[in-house]
Amino acid sequence: MTRKSKRSGEFELIAKYFAPLAKGEPGALGLKDDAAYLKPRPGFDLVLTTDAIVEGVHFFPDDPPATVAQKALRVNLSDLAAKGAIARGYLLTLTLPSGIDEVWVAAFAKGLSADQAKFGVALFGGDTTATPGVTTISITALGEVPRGQMLTRGGAQAGDDVWVTGTIGDATLGLKLLKREGFDLAKSHRQLLITRYRVPEPRSKVGPALKGLAHACIDVSDGLMADLGHIAEVSNVGIEIAVHDVPLSAAAKAAIQRGVELGELLSGGDDYELAIAAPSSARSRLLALAVETGVPLTRVGRVVKGRGVTALAADGKPVRTRRMGYTHF
Amino acid sequence: MTRKSKRSGEFELIAKYFAPLAKGEPGALGLKDDAAYLKPRPGFDLVLTTDAIVEGVHFFPDDPPATVAQKALRVNLSDLAAKGAIARGYLLTLTLPSGIDEVWVAAFAKGLSADQAKFGVALFGGDTTATPGVTTISITALGEVPRGQMLTRGGAQAGDDVWVTGTIGDATLGLKLLKREGFDLAKSHRQLLITRYRVPEPRSKVGPALKGLAHACIDVSDGLMADLGHIAEVSNVGIEIAVHDVPLSAAAKAAIQRGVELGELLSGGDDYELAIAAPSSARSRLLALAVETGVPLTRVGRVVKGRGVTALAADGKPVRTRRMGYTHF
Repeated sequence: MTRKSKRSGEFELIAKYFAPLAKGEPGALGLKDDAAYLKPRPGFDLVLTTDAIVEGVHFFPDDPPATVAQKALRVNLSDLAAKGAIARGYLLTLTLPSGIDEVWVAAFAKGLSADQAKFGVALFGGDTTATPGVTTISITALGEVPRGQMLTRGGAQAGDDVWVTGTIGDATLGLKLLKREGFDLAKSHRQLLITRYRVPEPRSKVGPALKGLAHACIDVSDGLMADLGHIAEVSNVGIEIAVHDVPLSAAAKAAIQRGVELGELLSGGDDYELAIAAPSSARSRLLALAVETGVPLTRVGRVVKGRGVTALAADGKPVRTRRMGYTHF
Repeated sequence: MTRKSKRSGEFELIAKYFAPLAKGEPGALGLKDDAAYLKPRPGFDLVLTTDAIVEGVHFFPDDPPATVAQKALRVNLSDLAAKGAIARGYLLTLTLPSGIDEVWVAAFAKGLSADQAKFGVALFGGDTTATPGVTTISITALGEVPRGQMLTRGGAQAGDDVWVTGTIGDATLGLKLLKREGFDLAKSHRQLLITRYRVPEPRSKVGPALKGLAHACIDVSDGLMADLGHIAEVSNVGIEIAVHDVPLSAAAKAAIQRGVELGELLSGGDDYELAIAAPSSARSRLLALAVETGVPLTRVGRVVKGRGVTALAADGKPVRTRRMGYTHF
């Protein structure tokens, strides 16, 4: 208790499961040192983000360890994508209760390994520690953007279109299913929604291609309405959303037919899609980008003078739904 | 439960207590974005390290929140110092149980603020989340070294001197006192030892000045013998330590008079002093560096051909003590 030093078991875990994840990155020094180095690319800025996920808060104790690892990494990669950055690597802090066995750690590392190949990132370094509490994974991810070109929440301008990638609301439905807030759905729909919650799909190809096209960008983690609210606040503008233009998966549409409210999907978090403000002059290039990347891009609203986010019904009138916590009327 | 999104209380905590810590760093964007940017200094490499501290493992539940914050930051700054890097900033993940009140957070942030001024670093970004477990603080620190000049554990050569900064064993004695593994000491000695445990003093001035002087460097976190063992292993050499040359504080000497074993101090962790391998040609410059920085530098041994770490008594014969887990005979 209460020494910062490593116990021998931690050294072994690092050597056996995590050092192999650092192999592709010379700056990681095989995880045999206290620190890593990174040689910045000339003419590029580094983009830094950190996000933690906690057992019982952001994932379930019985979630597969590989998907826990991937969620931890991907929520960070999603932040980098929203900044227009190309991910380069990450540092990992893994805090484990004594009950965790090596099988769990092996599967966790395997999940990271698969994602490293998928997203082209390497492990730069990390720390493993014991806890009397619950499993907690903290990741710091690093990416690169050409100097001065990082996308931010600021910069949206009245007249801009508002776009979203993919479909909205799936993750919050997946969470409802895992919490057994039952609604009846076909098995394939259930599986899709749960996967969307457990293993988000960071838009790592779309984000970096938005530089020079988008005025502002954010990833949808707090919920579409809330995250558009963040753009509106920092950009000092208002945003109007045509709620019936918001793209939904077939599974989400089925859930709505089963009585789930649309507002719940618009305010639900964890989708990790991108919400984008871009001038109308970028429309054709954004649609071409959707084709190139295979990621749908849907125009869902516009930036206006004013403040806050207004949801508009098909008749153009503001709608008020329960749960749309961040909506401004 | 199990949404990655922020609750409004977390936004407020960030705005009230953490955004002010990011003020000096334009790349932090006032913590109003998902990520920060860092403009690398031309000709420099970035040095990255991450370390977490956990309540009940690395600090006590009733430790003052300011010292908890400072320990979390300083163990990372110590890693950067050991790499010869000048610290630039850090990212913070703060995982809090529901019982933590705002008074605790305010004091925690105040501790960080004081250390930011002391060490010249800024907060680049962070994440706050709830946990059903215990308070956990994960920090990723970033520093800079001239390209290709990061110090590592590798590079020690037979014939090198081995040096340490400051005094060794104080932190492990402070921990013993906090755990009430009683030994009788004067109050001033007790306070010094506890402070050494709670608030380590990263050698941030010494480390960057070692570039061009030292062949290898490590910070003493696992214990002097263990950490010298890391240098020996990665450098593929042996190390001999003259145990009676290891610098001890007056408080540590008093503890030894009260029956604490010297071996316990040599194997105890958490001192966050630097252990250095340097050629004998660097002696006068290292001694001058001690004068310039006010940090004692003491020659305690030498690098030899072979492997492992050998502790030598005053008569030059190997000593064997209980607890010297990593000693090689």
